[in-house]
Amino acid sequence: MKKIITISREFGSGGGTIGKRVAERLGYEYYDKDLILKTAAKANMSAEEAIKLDENLSHGFGFGQSLFNLYSSPLDEKLYNAQKDVIREFAEKGNCVIVGRNANSILAEFDNTLHVFISANPAWRVRYLKADKMKDMSEDKIMSHLQKIDRARQKYCSYFTNTEFGVAKYYDVCLYSSVVGIDKCVDVICSIAE
Amino acid sequence: MKKIITISREFGSGGGTIGKRVAERLGYEYYDKDLILKTAAKANMSAEEAIKLDENLSHGFGFGQSLFNLYSSPLDEKLYNAQKDVIREFAEKGNCVIVGRNANSILAEFDNTLHVFISANPAWRVRYLKADKMKDMSEDKIMSHLQKIDRARQKYCSYFTNTEFGVAKYYDVCLYSSVVGIDKCVDVICSIAE
Repeated sequence: MKKIITISREFGSGGGTIGKRVAERLGYEYYDKDLILKTAAKANMSAEEAIKLDENLSHGFGFGQSLFNLYSSPLDEKLYNAQKDVIREFAEKGNCVIVGRNANSILAEFDNTLHVFISANPAWRVRYLKADKMKDMSEDKIMSHLQKIDRARQKYCSYFTNTEFGVAKYYDVCLYSSVVGIDKCVDVICSIAE
Repeated sequence: MKKIITISREFGSGGGTIGKRVAERLGYEYYDKDLILKTAAKANMSAEEAIKLDENLSHGFGFGQSLFNLYSSPLDEKLYNAQKDVIREFAEKGNCVIVGRNANSILAEFDNTLHVFISANPAWRVRYLKADKMKDMSEDKIMSHLQKIDRARQKYCSYFTNTEFGVAKYYDVCLYSSVVGIDKCVDVICSIAE
């Protein structure tokens, strides 16, 4: 039985929903946004500041060509380390689903883990977001927002870990939710965890 | 119901065995080495020659720094195109499992497909090969052989397709067989296909 399930996911792929339903079915705790608030407290930072930096690097790190972009700010490092501690604390309690924030890499040495990655067809992700979280935004705007978040998460992952975002060998299970379907993703993850 | 299942796999990850068992359980045809023989016939090539070039590029393509390595030989192209035709012929018949040879990318436009990628921990792969196909080779030798084949398959995939070998978004399901287990991989693939 896997005690700790991490879910890394593309924005708009349904990874959060899948994680929540897996947690419900297995009777596990579910950690997503709570991680940020606990992290902010630990880093003596306001919740607003922590939310702004969440799964991102400040100053558009790494997007330009400038040498100065090769370094993240001390704030990024401070927040990342606080978050790492929070993730490890949650994991030590066990029986939990942790979404995002490089948890697969941070918990690489933990036993009884199942590391999941969820991605999906970009057009499907736009429709998924339009139907729920981003009702008031045009599909074009959602697409460009989504591409920015994809790049930010890739950079965030490469910068802070020895892994690459979305490369299969860094996860135990990767599912393309637009083909497999949200319900089936939940079934498959629970069946492998059990 | 998915009519065509492609299985891309790291060498020694058990992907072939998984594919064979999925085919048996679903009552599907299984195509692996047969692809090469049919391809050889189509390309007017000897079986030996086709086997040598299988899932590889001649002349150590792309491993050196030389500009001359940027091009594959006409033989590579001829073989690849013949193989593409053979894969499409098999897929058109339907109800089949096709292992390797960029079938996921070649059949990207086909309906009712399920594209699977199997990878595994390198040390586990060495033990898996040592226990079966490579009994007489030392573990060190198997490891270096495995690393060579990994690089060759990556190059082969990048050269001939618009995808990257082992990047989750190019597959519907990726499973890390050393954690998930061979039996569970078979169960999961069949359950998603059905």
